[in-house]
Amino acid sequence: MLEELKKEVYEANMLLPKYGLVTFTWGNVSGIDRESGLVVIKPSGVDYDKMTADDMVVVDLEGNRVEGNLNPSSDTATHLELYKAFPDMGGIVHTHSPWATSWAQAGRGIPCYGTTHADYMYGEIPCVRNLTKEEIDEAYEKNTGVLIVEHFKDTEYMAMPAVLCKNHGPFTWGTDPHNAVHNAVVLEEVAKMAARCEMINPDVKPAPQELQDKHYYRKHGKDAYYGQG
Amino acid sequence: MLEELKKEVYEANMLLPKYGLVTFTWGNVSGIDRESGLVVIKPSGVDYDKMTADDMVVVDLEGNRVEGNLNPSSDTATHLELYKAFPDMGGIVHTHSPWATSWAQAGRGIPCYGTTHADYMYGEIPCVRNLTKEEIDEAYEKNTGVLIVEHFKDTEYMAMPAVLCKNHGPFTWGTDPHNAVHNAVVLEEVAKMAARCEMINPDVKPAPQELQDKHYYRKHGKDAYYGQG
Amino acid sequence: MLEELKKEVYEANMLLPKYGLVTFTWGNVSGIDRESGLVVIKPSGVDYDKMTADDMVVVDLEGNRVEGNLNPSSDTATHLELYKAFPDMGGIVHTHSPWATSWAQAGRGIPCYGTTHADYMYGEIPCVRNLTKEEIDEAYEKNTGVLIVEHFKDTEYMAMPAVLCKNHGPFTWGTDPHNAVHNAVVLEEVAKMAARCEMINPDVKPAPQELQDKHYYRKHGKDAYYGQG
Amino acid sequence: MLEELKKEVYEANMLLPKYGLVTFTWGNVSGIDRESGLVVIKPSGVDYDKMTADDMVVVDLEGNRVEGNLNPSSDTATHLELYKAFPDMGGIVHTHSPWATSWAQAGRGIPCYGTTHADYMYGEIPCVRNLTKEEIDEAYEKNTGVLIVEHFKDTEYMAMPAVLCKNHGPFTWGTDPHNAVHNAVVLEEVAKMAARCEMINPDVKPAPQELQDKHYYRKHGKDAYYGQG
Repeated sequence: MLEELKKEVYEANMLLPKYGLVTFTWGNVSGIDRESGLVVIKPSGVDYDKMTADDMVVVDLEGNRVEGNLNPSSDTATHLELYKAFPDMGGIVHTHSPWATSWAQAGRGIPCYGTTHADYMYGEIPCVRNLTKEEIDEAYEKNTGVLIVEHFKDTEYMAMPAVLCKNHGPFTWGTDPHNAVHNAVVLEEVAKMAARCEMINPDVKPAPQELQDKHYYRKHGKDAYYGQG
Repeated sequence: MLEELKKEVYEANMLLPKYGLVTFTWGNVSGIDRESGLVVIKPSGVDYDKMTADDMVVVDLEGNRVEGNLNPSSDTATHLELYKAFPDMGGIVHTHSPWATSWAQAGRGIPCYGTTHADYMYGEIPCVRNLTKEEIDEAYEKNTGVLIVEHFKDTEYMAMPAVLCKNHGPFTWGTDPHNAVHNAVVLEEVAKMAARCEMINPDVKPAPQELQDKHYYRKHGKDAYYGQG
Repeated sequence: MLEELKKEVYEANMLLPKYGLVTFTWGNVSGIDRESGLVVIKPSGVDYDKMTADDMVVVDLEGNRVEGNLNPSSDTATHLELYKAFPDMGGIVHTHSPWATSWAQAGRGIPCYGTTHADYMYGEIPCVRNLTKEEIDEAYEKNTGVLIVEHFKDTEYMAMPAVLCKNHGPFTWGTDPHNAVHNAVVLEEVAKMAARCEMINPDVKPAPQELQDKHYYRKHGKDAYYGQG
Repeated sequence: MLEELKKEVYEANMLLPKYGLVTFTWGNVSGIDRESGLVVIKPSGVDYDKMTADDMVVVDLEGNRVEGNLNPSSDTATHLELYKAFPDMGGIVHTHSPWATSWAQAGRGIPCYGTTHADYMYGEIPCVRNLTKEEIDEAYEKNTGVLIVEHFKDTEYMAMPAVLCKNHGPFTWGTDPHNAVHNAVVLEEVAKMAARCEMINPDVKPAPQELQDKHYYRKHGKDAYYGQG
């Protein structure tokens, strides 16, 4: 079942250690088959170097396991909320990548200081608030998703494919699992350079809007012409 | 004698360079066999790339060498104090890993700024005081252990498996030697992100208590359900 | 056509990931054959691990593609402006290398704090202003080149083979493509050390002029005697 | 001639890229044969990956080339001044290693903040002043050595085997070439942790003297008992 997607999700998960985004098992990638409404996700607590494509778990959008011997990632409920709310998302990534997590712990969104950021993400990368004690107690992982949905509903969520959860870490998404990992790498690089940029110039301001627009729209939308060259 | 534990301690020692926690020979891992009360520890001053499982040294809890041709690590006396005071410790690690050591040199405990920290360590990672000149002169390595015991006695020491010794560096522990190394890796990652987080937001506050509780207890204790996913 | 130069440009491009200067496809190297006035440049949007020497694109100084199946790098127009204005340039590099880009985002030139900098670059590495909205709308990539030309005309541009574009990133150049990459590596190293140096001493001043002169001129010009030893 | 020492010096030079202390050819190691008074040093401007033991150059203490087809490192005159003044030095290293160079550029000595430092170097690592214009013009490389000699004469120079030259970079020494490289690695690690330590606690004070004494003397001198464990 969904062999192609399971392979894709497996490979995308294996990119996380390759790009230095995870320590131990601190991360997970999922992908969705929109036709069947089924989600493929990394199993919970399996080492990257022992994981195979067959270990990927298939769940439906209510979180019921449809295939697989292992438990799905404990963060599955967060992924599902996003897939249910945002039809253009084809893949989702959660990591504790160190620079993005440092911003999340600092409780700050990442201003757009340059074209590396603007090439992929339009505007400031938001940092959403802590869940309340009630939200945590009721359903922590699900409500993390609900909070992200709350922030991005009625927005161009594919133009800002990343969010920081305060005191926790980042989620990114994309058109498919690989693209979501690509955005996780971009986020980490952008987070690193933004922190260093503020160290070099504590009074730094975001890049001019016209420069942000130029870089974002030369790569995205109907007038795009830029091939990442 | 204790072949299994010697292999385990050897492998745990070899993880230190793999995870970038040591330069040269600046680190040591030990493990204890609670039944016999014997401790296996890295020999003193042997290069990691020349070390074998047979080089591991067996000592009793009084520090007498029971097996092995080499001298045990000079920090052995510190390890023994901890094993004697804390029956749940199965493995202990000492390193000069750079971020944790930078906090130790700064003389500060590491506040819990996020869930990466809370997933493994409950509360602020403490930094214990300098030994006095008298304590140093009397028995430096042993008294380092005595000081740590003083701090952790009557606490849930397995819920805070790490300590910083002021102007020196970290010790971590775990249920066995591998688990103690795992905690040493977590500590280094947490120390790195906490420092960067304060750089990004000098007024940052620790994560809300309910978030710390949620993350710690979903992985530890009788209601745990999280598989590191 | 230009097989030797294509090989050279290809190899120079492959040095960018080797030296850690690029993530994904964020960089490009070109070289010029001054006799024919033809420029060889990396194709747009091709992964480094799939690229071959045959993928290199040949364009004339007006930007017309003379050979190659792929589109030239989208930054080609910037390269061409520089080649047209500065006859001694034999190779040009653009990257988003993290430390240099952090300075560019911070909008600051890099002061000459030491001999590593002075060995290769004479004086402060300049950061040129943002393009205006009009300049962006008219011809973004070309006008980036025009702005750099404006800054360096009537200067010893081979003695300062690097520039930062505000909120964007660096360009470097050299006598040939490899030399331009060499300067990109120097720039990144110098940018890193300058940022850390200001962290260590916020009141730091540039190196004395006589020291800068000594280091630059013992390696460059008619009295040079230093072999990079 | 001096085949053993040439091999030793060659191998010590090759450790510089292995430990991440050099970019390109920015570093050199030498060793001395005290009996003959001859010094073996890296040739000038040769890439590490093309260098062989046979490329090492033999010079006498006046700087005359005694053997070898290549020119000796341009920094040879600095090495020779040190060998002439300090009979216990058996090997000398110069690098532009990034953290140590950042302190040199900042013009600050490195305070002893912890035991990693105290294990190998006794007290603050000094930063010597800039040469005057007259000293530079007269004999730059030689006078760099003269300045270092001036600082260390009448001191226990083997107990502080490192110096920073303001706006330039570090020199380290040891009993032989390998030991000098070992000290260069220690210096870089200590420089990194000291900078981060000040970032974490801007009011940090050096480690207590009794702790510095304990760590230095348990590894050095007649009462040493510590095997780097």
